[in-house]
Amino acid sequence: MTTTMPAGVAAARDLVGPAVLGWLDRLSPDVRIVAAYHLGFVDANGTPTGEAQGGKALRPALALLSARAAGSPPERGVTAAAAVEFVHNFSLLHDDIMDDDTERRHRPTAWTVFGVGAAILAGDALLCLAQDMLISDPSPQGVWAARCLSAAVHRLIAGQGADLAFERRDDVTLDECLQMAGDKTAALMACACSIGAIGVGAPAELAMGLAGFGAHVGLAFQLTDDLLGIWGAPEVTGKPVRADLRARKKSLPVVAALTGGTQAGKELGELLARPGTLSEEDLLRGAELVEQAGGRKWAENEADAQLAAANKCLAETEMPEDVRSEFAAIASFITVRQS
Amino acid sequence: MTTTMPAGVAAARDLVGPAVLGWLDRLSPDVRIVAAYHLGFVDANGTPTGEAQGGKALRPALALLSARAAGSPPERGVTAAAAVEFVHNFSLLHDDIMDDDTERRHRPTAWTVFGVGAAILAGDALLCLAQDMLISDPSPQGVWAARCLSAAVHRLIAGQGADLAFERRDDVTLDECLQMAGDKTAALMACACSIGAIGVGAPAELAMGLAGFGAHVGLAFQLTDDLLGIWGAPEVTGKPVRADLRARKKSLPVVAALTGGTQAGKELGELLARPGTLSEEDLLRGAELVEQAGGRKWAENEADAQLAAANKCLAETEMPEDVRSEFAAIASFITVRQS
Repeated sequence: MTTTMPAGVAAARDLVGPAVLGWLDRLSPDVRIVAAYHLGFVDANGTPTGEAQGGKALRPALALLSARAAGSPPERGVTAAAAVEFVHNFSLLHDDIMDDDTERRHRPTAWTVFGVGAAILAGDALLCLAQDMLISDPSPQGVWAARCLSAAVHRLIAGQGADLAFERRDDVTLDECLQMAGDKTAALMACACSIGAIGVGAPAELAMGLAGFGAHVGLAFQLTDDLLGIWGAPEVTGKPVRADLRARKKSLPVVAALTGGTQAGKELGELLARPGTLSEEDLLRGAELVEQAGGRKWAENEADAQLAAANKCLAETEMPEDVRSEFAAIASFITVRQS
Repeated sequence: MTTTMPAGVAAARDLVGPAVLGWLDRLSPDVRIVAAYHLGFVDANGTPTGEAQGGKALRPALALLSARAAGSPPERGVTAAAAVEFVHNFSLLHDDIMDDDTERRHRPTAWTVFGVGAAILAGDALLCLAQDMLISDPSPQGVWAARCLSAAVHRLIAGQGADLAFERRDDVTLDECLQMAGDKTAALMACACSIGAIGVGAPAELAMGLAGFGAHVGLAFQLTDDLLGIWGAPEVTGKPVRADLRARKKSLPVVAALTGGTQAGKELGELLARPGTLSEEDLLRGAELVEQAGGRKWAENEADAQLAAANKCLAETEMPEDVRSEFAAIASFITVRQS
């Protein structure tokens, strides 16, 4: 495992960043500033930050690799990469409202700065833009890429819908939770890993192999993210410590702990069902209980298993060796647990 | 002018309704119930209402006519009609949140019943579904239809963005306001009137003629809606009386009154700038001032002029005579002022 960002990710950001900015110019000024703020290009007043782009731009890097896996230069994957990044950020803009999150990437979330209405609209605009970009290439493979993205968006929405529904339930099973993570996170990752290849007309076996790799990486990533949501340091996650417990999120380690049939799991359920705000002491105790109930270990093992499955897909899919190593480096980078 | 709904509208609802329901089934249950509630198919518990569909389904009727204008049977316009209806309802779901509207079509709005998060998500799902439906026909004309819709969504978002921005400004010009209405309302109406023809591969002149008709009808409709927003009876509008004044909306008659350089316009500006909730007396006085300042007359004349321009487009575009009369009947129906 590596903790330094693979070189390909920064290179992808340099290649895709200008395209992202160019497409943003299609938005009306009122909407554009909110999207540009969210993406890290400008501050709340619209002044350029000088940053290439906020976020790690992992999905664009995967999309460019995906075009290269099909033997095309990365440039041919740029539109698909930008489209995937727009969809990812559409969902972040809306999720931050739904989850009442006030901070993202160490900055106030867009809705806290510009209002809920403006943030909803900026998300809508990015979703529409993403679809628009892909169908501006009317070739059959362009349309296939658009359909691939559209299918991922449907699953993303289904996953977020399940996540919201889980908040009101105390009988969520681990299977439901895994399904939700598959929809909410893994589907778009699978799309990112295959859309570049699809867009250049790659054979179905390659597209399917890459999508399989992406789906497993996506689950490994979500498990890692859920672990960081409890045990991650704020300077790494960009969120307050134990944020997911504070929000009583039914994340994977929590549901594993709740459903494991242990005494600690039962206590955890009681703690999370307590009305009112949870104190720092409660949160510390909650984290301990997740661990005692086996939720942490389960999530760590499952993340490792998903990463292994991803690497198996990668090994079994034909592509240039340098592309394969770069895919593997990103997979390992985004599943490292810096807690 | 007619006040009874043209027969074609009910027929369109019967034809498009089952398709709308069928496509809704693609959504996950948590998301589907919110969309189905908003569309009037089910109540808040998910029990079918037995209604064909909420709303007047005007845009689907226009889309079916559009296919017929190109000499195709209406059945060939059904997917496009459902897609336009989904986009319209995506925007209503989100606008109701942004505008803090608690009632629509005589029922509580979706966000008040299911929460803001669920309503955002249901809107997202309908937007994604609309795009998805159109690109599931990968023929060149299918892709053109998708691009036509996508362009309309961009303008719709730009218009709503401008509308939100207007709330914070007291120097909105009538030109800006007309541009906003063109984006927010007329663009989707133009799309509805042309997408059926585009989807069956009609020649560009027909598509452009129909889009021109739709753009003018859309503006006439928005002007009428703005007039009803001040002088419309609640049983007609489904909203409280003088709702737009209460919300201090910079609607077209209001902006015409504010910018007309009259003493009444100046007084109106002062009244709308007053902090705190406006009393019933204030609202009555506000409506009087809009009228005295010439805002009502201007909007009525402009609505008539737009309707005339729409009918001119219609007369100059070649299509079967029965289709032309049905278009004209809908245009006149949706611009009648029942105040």
